[in-house]
Amino acid sequence: MDFKINQKRLLDKIECLAKIGAIDNNGVSRLALTKEDKIARDLVVQWMKELDLNVNIDQLGNIIAIRKGLNDNEPVMTGSHIDTVSTAGKLDGCYGVLAGLEIVNTLNENNIQTKRPIAVGVFTNEEGVRYTPDMMGSLAYVGELSLKKALETKGFDGSILGEELEKINYAGDLKVGAIKPHSYVELHIEQGPILSQEKIKIGVVENLLGISWQEITIIGEANHAGTTPLDLRHDAGLVVAKIISFVRELCLEVGGEQRGTCGMIEFEPNIINVIPSSAKFTIDLRNSCNDKLIYAENTLSKYIDEISQEEGVKIQKKQLVRFEPVEFNKSIVETIQYAADKCGYTYRLMTSGAGHDAQMMSRICPSAMIFVPSKDGISHNPREYSSPNDLGKGVNVLYKTMIQLANH
Amino acid sequence: MDFKINQKRLLDKIECLAKIGAIDNNGVSRLALTKEDKIARDLVVQWMKELDLNVNIDQLGNIIAIRKGLNDNEPVMTGSHIDTVSTAGKLDGCYGVLAGLEIVNTLNENNIQTKRPIAVGVFTNEEGVRYTPDMMGSLAYVGELSLKKALETKGFDGSILGEELEKINYAGDLKVGAIKPHSYVELHIEQGPILSQEKIKIGVVENLLGISWQEITIIGEANHAGTTPLDLRHDAGLVVAKIISFVRELCLEVGGEQRGTCGMIEFEPNIINVIPSSAKFTIDLRNSCNDKLIYAENTLSKYIDEISQEEGVKIQKKQLVRFEPVEFNKSIVETIQYAADKCGYTYRLMTSGAGHDAQMMSRICPSAMIFVPSKDGISHNPREYSSPNDLGKGVNVLYKTMIQLANH
Repeated sequence: MDFKINQKRLLDKIECLAKIGAIDNNGVSRLALTKEDKIARDLVVQWMKELDLNVNIDQLGNIIAIRKGLNDNEPVMTGSHIDTVSTAGKLDGCYGVLAGLEIVNTLNENNIQTKRPIAVGVFTNEEGVRYTPDMMGSLAYVGELSLKKALETKGFDGSILGEELEKINYAGDLKVGAIKPHSYVELHIEQGPILSQEKIKIGVVENLLGISWQEITIIGEANHAGTTPLDLRHDAGLVVAKIISFVRELCLEVGGEQRGTCGMIEFEPNIINVIPSSAKFTIDLRNSCNDKLIYAENTLSKYIDEISQEEGVKIQKKQLVRFEPVEFNKSIVETIQYAADKCGYTYRLMTSGAGHDAQMMSRICPSAMIFVPSKDGISHNPREYSSPNDLGKGVNVLYKTMIQLANH
Repeated sequence: MDFKINQKRLLDKIECLAKIGAIDNNGVSRLALTKEDKIARDLVVQWMKELDLNVNIDQLGNIIAIRKGLNDNEPVMTGSHIDTVSTAGKLDGCYGVLAGLEIVNTLNENNIQTKRPIAVGVFTNEEGVRYTPDMMGSLAYVGELSLKKALETKGFDGSILGEELEKINYAGDLKVGAIKPHSYVELHIEQGPILSQEKIKIGVVENLLGISWQEITIIGEANHAGTTPLDLRHDAGLVVAKIISFVRELCLEVGGEQRGTCGMIEFEPNIINVIPSSAKFTIDLRNSCNDKLIYAENTLSKYIDEISQEEGVKIQKKQLVRFEPVEFNKSIVETIQYAADKCGYTYRLMTSGAGHDAQMMSRICPSAMIFVPSKDGISHNPREYSSPNDLGKGVNVLYKTMIQLANH
């Protein structure tokens, strides 16, 4: 059982898949259910069939490929997604899916049979760029989003998800979630700087930050920047600035893993000498402890109400996303640690700041994740990079983990 | 000499001019040197000729119409502009120009001759929306901007000012600034809330805030909002927020008439779960005391340098506009007070927070301004409104002021 995976074969597949939807600077743009997504799906399905996998497509386009086991029990599953953001690198998602295929390839060529079947999943619309919410395929897989609602989703480009799914011929027959896994382990690049900074090769992900996204709109009053005395202003821009500054203070106060970010902003009318009449912006709050996350949300909400009074502005809050923190399965985490140790790689327990399909899968089966280092933590960017050796090491750990889970 | 102007005739002309470039909600969009500007200029010149004025067009398209006096001395001048921002009301600028025509009309129909000639000026590109800087026509008029540089100005739409001026047939022969006025008095809506809040009819403007506009660009580092610990962030958005909050603190510290506004902002990449890699925004600082304005600029600059260090971001500062505060001529201010008093209107001394052509003209001749109330201080907006009676009162005060200046 001590065979290692074929690193070159893995990298060749990563490069090959990245040609579909390629953009400048070695980047990839392959939004969910576009023509590019179809071509990429077709290629991955072809690879699956070449590996003698039994390919199942469900009604939401999730692809579940099964390698027979000695028994017919629930399969040990790995997987991820192959849709990307519009300015992606080659690794996010694709690495996890192709790692699964490489493991099957290694098992096949060494004639290894596992007791349980092995499954490789490709989930629909993980990124959530064209259709919200993100992690949609796995969310439906675990029964938290109805098929009907998912298919009716309207995209930012006006398209209807169900129609696009039909168009690319990936509306399958299988009921969503029909194949219940024994366990789920997802391999992913870290998308953060910790492993690369600490020069550790394997991240054993034991939990996942809870995520709270809000869109906040401040309605103030447009007025001339020169002629309006300070005490007569209802400056939507100033209120945003105070809230963003407050969010940082709040994160420092809560401490630990509390994170807070304003990523998007828009002023109206956005003219140099006009006090903004309105400002729309987003706040992304995360914590691995749900109580602390709720505290952060409530404290922010209270501050927003106070400043709304103080500055005489109206404030609208809209929750865009709310996921509770996830604790991965302790036994799976230990299995990954054991595998990393056996491979002789440095590893550490860690928390994932990003959301992943594993977060959904953990609701229906014991799950955990494996991370490999991301150079400078850069992701969702053509500059996303993990070294070939680090990518290879990650697959070896996943390989050992899955064999262990499938045989015991 | 106690004739009053014809309020209805004034309002009719305002409504008529506002039809050119009319937009929704009774607004006007008539950017400098566009087809709409040409049609408006043609109409105003036609009205000037109907009033027997001698119409002069200078090489930058400034229009100076002269009514003969009993002597050939320098004329007493009034005026303003008829270009508008893209979402303007009917009054900003146009009111001042049409007030000049109404005064000539009143003088004509009552056969009143003044000792000095009376001049009505229409300055090119006061708003500075299509071409910067704003107040361009009057800036060149007083010799602070060369004709060559003005004509070579490239607009935001890629057009060249000189070419557009030729195209609309307003590149005249007169040397810019050739007609030196004896004095200059400009009538304008307040564009601020003070008169309307205090229920005072006439603002006698004794000075004008100095203006400092900067564009500031923060270069941080894009990173994942979930996976990047606080201490590894270089968050351009947070830095902007802290600077905007600081600007308000600074204004409160400097006190008095110090104003500070962030009107424009832009994040890159502007994605909800990505820490902004860069943020571009503007700061508009104003004060009637130049020393205080310099103090505010320097204190802000120092703070920006400190926070740049603290947060590990690069900051670029670009000065867009810098005008020193203007003290209007005391004697003209007294003449306006006297005229308002004679008319029996309530009045108060005040400071203009906005820039006006009078600010430029004051560099070459004794100048001052008259304000009338703006409902809620709203301007650069179709909702801009001053009551017919208030508009009439303003012209009466200008009328009395000009006769006084022209005869004594």
